[in-house]
Amino acid sequence: METNYQKLERRLEETSRLGGIMGILHWDQEVIMPSGAAESRARQMGVLAGTIHEKSTDPKLGKLLDALDKENSFNAFEECNIREARREYDMETKVPKDLVMKLAELSSKGHQVWVKARSENKFSDFAPLLKQLVELKKRWAEYVSPELPSYDANIDLYERGGTMAKITPVFETLKSELIPLIRDIQKSDYKPKTSFLSGNFPVEKQEGLGRRISEEIGFAFDRGRMDISVHPFCGGSHPTDVRITTRYRTDNFIESLYAVIHETGHGLYEQGRMKVGRDLPASEALSMGIHESQSLFWERMIAQGPAFCKSYLPLIAETFPENFNAVSSDQLYEAVNVSEPSYIRVEADEVTYPMHVILRYEIEKGLFDGSVEINTLPELWNSKMKEYLGVEPPSDTLGVLQDTHWSGAAFGYFPSYTLGAIYASQFYKTLLQEKPDLGNEIESGNLATIRQWLNQEIHEKGRLLSVANLVKQVTGDDLNPTIFLDYLKKKYRKIYRLN
Amino acid sequence: METNYQKLERRLEETSRLGGIMGILHWDQEVIMPSGAAESRARQMGVLAGTIHEKSTDPKLGKLLDALDKENSFNAFEECNIREARREYDMETKVPKDLVMKLAELSSKGHQVWVKARSENKFSDFAPLLKQLVELKKRWAEYVSPELPSYDANIDLYERGGTMAKITPVFETLKSELIPLIRDIQKSDYKPKTSFLSGNFPVEKQEGLGRRISEEIGFAFDRGRMDISVHPFCGGSHPTDVRITTRYRTDNFIESLYAVIHETGHGLYEQGRMKVGRDLPASEALSMGIHESQSLFWERMIAQGPAFCKSYLPLIAETFPENFNAVSSDQLYEAVNVSEPSYIRVEADEVTYPMHVILRYEIEKGLFDGSVEINTLPELWNSKMKEYLGVEPPSDTLGVLQDTHWSGAAFGYFPSYTLGAIYASQFYKTLLQEKPDLGNEIESGNLATIRQWLNQEIHEKGRLLSVANLVKQVTGDDLNPTIFLDYLKKKYRKIYRLN
Repeated sequence: METNYQKLERRLEETSRLGGIMGILHWDQEVIMPSGAAESRARQMGVLAGTIHEKSTDPKLGKLLDALDKENSFNAFEECNIREARREYDMETKVPKDLVMKLAELSSKGHQVWVKARSENKFSDFAPLLKQLVELKKRWAEYVSPELPSYDANIDLYERGGTMAKITPVFETLKSELIPLIRDIQKSDYKPKTSFLSGNFPVEKQEGLGRRISEEIGFAFDRGRMDISVHPFCGGSHPTDVRITTRYRTDNFIESLYAVIHETGHGLYEQGRMKVGRDLPASEALSMGIHESQSLFWERMIAQGPAFCKSYLPLIAETFPENFNAVSSDQLYEAVNVSEPSYIRVEADEVTYPMHVILRYEIEKGLFDGSVEINTLPELWNSKMKEYLGVEPPSDTLGVLQDTHWSGAAFGYFPSYTLGAIYASQFYKTLLQEKPDLGNEIESGNLATIRQWLNQEIHEKGRLLSVANLVKQVTGDDLNPTIFLDYLKKKYRKIYRLN
Repeated sequence: METNYQKLERRLEETSRLGGIMGILHWDQEVIMPSGAAESRARQMGVLAGTIHEKSTDPKLGKLLDALDKENSFNAFEECNIREARREYDMETKVPKDLVMKLAELSSKGHQVWVKARSENKFSDFAPLLKQLVELKKRWAEYVSPELPSYDANIDLYERGGTMAKITPVFETLKSELIPLIRDIQKSDYKPKTSFLSGNFPVEKQEGLGRRISEEIGFAFDRGRMDISVHPFCGGSHPTDVRITTRYRTDNFIESLYAVIHETGHGLYEQGRMKVGRDLPASEALSMGIHESQSLFWERMIAQGPAFCKSYLPLIAETFPENFNAVSSDQLYEAVNVSEPSYIRVEADEVTYPMHVILRYEIEKGLFDGSVEINTLPELWNSKMKEYLGVEPPSDTLGVLQDTHWSGAAFGYFPSYTLGAIYASQFYKTLLQEKPDLGNEIESGNLATIRQWLNQEIHEKGRLLSVANLVKQVTGDDLNPTIFLDYLKKKYRKIYRLN
């Protein structure tokens, strides 16, 4: 006889596997699908999403969860699966079907409207839809978490337990110190030399370099792939099938290489999930913020650090001798850490990036509490850009229309990028305390210590702990923007000769 | 209000789209999946298959079909969808679930056992499983079509309406004429020169050539792809997403090129399906035999014909000048039409291929009517090879264990290869009568006439007609082995200087 818990596992495994299939359809669509198949693929994904929804809202699942509520003596892993299943079931069933469908329809339409509005630089074409999406997401939030302010319910979807009450003071602290740091950097007379980063870099050589570095960081190519897509991402269907992508420009290899390293960080999290119960929610990545902490850890803490630059300069010089024969590792280090305000979030460096996020966070907060009107957004955006970064976008295409998130109703997603950056700096500080010799290890090409530490401390823990408890357990601290600020100030004041 | 018929369409579209997803999972597995994902992929496919099965056997679907039985005034397209849905539903629901599961389990296990037995040349390791599979498929047949002999029910799965009563006399006719033709060819003093087909052919050049020829035949790369897999196949998810594969050997480009052309023929059938109702069964390919007729039409009737060889020799010579600078188109034509008995079906030429099929057909027939014992198969196989082709396999690996079909319980599949070859020859004869100038058109590089004719006459008709009625409508004739024999005799007696 199957126990109720075993029955639950069977159901959860089924939806997890269907979710994995969705992952492959998505990857295929972004990487390899013939252009003519867009419509048929959308329909296939629609049917699969409907099937997953049916299974996630099956009243029998509800009864099973009710029965399990009355049982006890579960271990932590089992408890976590029950908790996750309950959360998911409630989320899926609390919202009336017509609202779910309306949201799905408008998000899908929203993407097309946004693509057009962005290319034509016409915010007014996107505004009515954006307004509707905000309204729908407010209503959605009232169903899902009536006890929370509606923006908190949206944040919670991506960063569980993340609330305005926690995030606002953290972001205020960042603002108060980053704005002056960014100004100081701008005013510095010292500008790192970057001319050797320009040149002609054949795609095959870039690909070989990226693949080798990804493999040395620890990405397992027998359980993953690396391909090309318009926007780099990490997808796939299972910890044994993790697929990262990058894109190539022949006049710049750094962008692609660091995208590979970033996605490798995401990929290691997925490949490194706990060895048992991999089709169950307890093994899944904890939150978007923690996921981002893993990609940023490798991209910024490690690969943009001086030891890594020293370790990999010979390989880079061997790959692109014309550009790197006369470059020192200090020069490479400074060149990959240039900080400069820019209009576009995804191109921003680690110092300016948080300001892009805070700007969006403040706008979203205002949209949800009613203090910001949709039609004021372009103006508001530009004035905040001026205030935070000292630059003003010449068009909405390069301003308020640049991101896809709002067109898909993904409000509350942006904060996780900067929460991830903060977590990464906290994890890095702890790792450095535990392994004081880390710099030498990296210099000698040994990256296994880092990989194993992240794996044990974070990847293998799945969802057993809350985000706050995980951070506490690993670092002994709460979410702490000061550590991130100290890291940035120390690093960039030195690069820009600021004291 | 939705009519019953509209409700049916919605259900059929849903299963068709889920089937398309299965197509992508299968393609991905064969072409691109990381090796470590085999287990997780198998589980994903299992869950999807289960979901499709649930939907196909939903009692509500049964009631809907019962209600539709009482309605009328449907057009041919609607009637076809109802007929196909009924057939599918009955097939899925008539068989007890434990038999379905037992078959799925044993077929999956069968594949592994067969792979091992083949590599170790141990038929006795495969025999017990094969015996079980035949028994299960006999029981399966009694449930599905109790009115038919059990082997007929199996054939019907791949070639609807194909029965031993129809096939046996056709195959007897082929045997009676092919065995002497094969002997005559063997005895001929004339052997076409083939040395120029050996050499060093870089994969990139082969790929470029294959892609160009596939495109000129009419394969639309915006609605399809061409990739590499261990065994060439045509898959994908929809008429707008058709994926063909080939494989490359650097010492032989002909094998790969003709695999591309063969799969292009399959691909054109899929891409050329009727423009409406593409997610409904009425639009689907009619049968395995008709599908094979399309691939063989392009591979053999057209691309192995003299006009095509003349038309494409310059391109081939431009691609591989070292080998082809001094070759005439007659020489190319003869070289790609060498006929010689061999052990392996998939490597056989068009004259000897039917004998491989007939041998398997006779064995399967015997297994199902009880006149053949499993443990006599190796001996029986070898004696038939000797009788039909004059060669005796040195091992079971090269004999009775060579094909994967039996390990997956796909009894009754083999005949469709040769039925396809016969249909292809009949279609070709009709086309030649309608377009007497075809040879000149091909020589001048115009393949559109052929493509359009096949599209109109066959692809766009979907499943509206039965196989027998389609063949009758297109050719004015029934399945007629004499036309195939005339084609072979005329072609090969000339090549081998037999009169």
